[in-house]
Amino acid sequence: MKGGGVEVGVAAKDSTQRNGVNRGVSILDFILRLLGFIATLGSAIAMATTNESLPFFTRFIRFRAEYDDLPTFTFFVIANAIVSGYLILSLPFSIIHIVRSKAQKTRILLIFFDSAMLGLLTAGASAAAAIVYLAHKGNRKANWFAICQQFNSFCERISGSLIGSFIGVVLFILIILSSGVALSRR
Amino acid sequence: MKGGGVEVGVAAKDSTQRNGVNRGVSILDFILRLLGFIATLGSAIAMATTNESLPFFTRFIRFRAEYDDLPTFTFFVIANAIVSGYLILSLPFSIIHIVRSKAQKTRILLIFFDSAMLGLLTAGASAAAAIVYLAHKGNRKANWFAICQQFNSFCERISGSLIGSFIGVVLFILIILSSGVALSRR
Repeated sequence: MKGGGVEVGVAAKDSTQRNGVNRGVSILDFILRLLGFIATLGSAIAMATTNESLPFFTRFIRFRAEYDDLPTFTFFVIANAIVSGYLILSLPFSIIHIVRSKAQKTRILLIFFDSAMLGLLTAGASAAAAIVYLAHKGNRKANWFAICQQFNSFCERISGSLIGSFIGVVLFILIILSSGVALSRR
Repeated sequence: MKGGGVEVGVAAKDSTQRNGVNRGVSILDFILRLLGFIATLGSAIAMATTNESLPFFTRFIRFRAEYDDLPTFTFFVIANAIVSGYLILSLPFSIIHIVRSKAQKTRILLIFFDSAMLGLLTAGASAAAAIVYLAHKGNRKANWFAICQQFNSFCERISGSLIGSFIGVVLFILIILSSGVALSRR
């Protein structure tokens, strides 16, 4: 708060106004991070706990679908877990930004990690979405059949777990935007 | 340049230094956007021109693989085309930032669109990567066979076209970072 005190002396009212706007942006940032944490954690848990056994088993195979039958879903769970872990770890920084609204270096650090995490989360979500689409529709040309015809509730569950991830993606774009606004208004 | 002139009068040397750094960052931003444009355009073209006919045809089917047999690859091409179009359209803004290094609003606008485009590009690239992985390895549990055993050069081509997209993703993260640095240093 020392550096802040010196600058307040120079242009008190203007600075106070700017601080107020910055504080508002920082609080918004905090809320967005918290929502993102909940969305990605929910997504990871929903996917990781998915499995379905069909009520019949023929010959020597028991039909059972789990999320880790497809490596893409494993990646999805890991990506969501990493991002939600990152978001909970970034909350203290967000609190620092609320208290010290002139902080710059930590904001730039966060903007870098935020965009990297946006990349990771989008990668996980859209790769999983591509596979979910395939599971629903199959592909005639490649001779890949729609497994959703057998595993109904499994497919509904994995489709649903994508939602949290895509909400997380939108939240990250808003977080990066709010960081940009805060940086321009110090 | 009017507003800039007023501020130069207040703290001439400091401002000039800052302008210098900002100009450097803006030039870097321009170069990154140009590289990103080349990478994503190359990626889109490489994928869109991919097709392979097998040298034999049995019964009544001619074996032929094209990129738009799989909707994910169509999305990949569209996403890359949109992003490369956006990057070429954002170059004038980047030039404005080199000339007027105090510009803020356009930077915030760009930071928002940049992160949205990062999301779109990552989505396209990783969805395509998930399908390419499946084409290479197949999935025993879901009864999806590796089509790459038949379509060799097709698979090599689609794998290669992913590279440009992922380079584009990394470039976007650097572009967002450089925007953050420029905003903090006005």
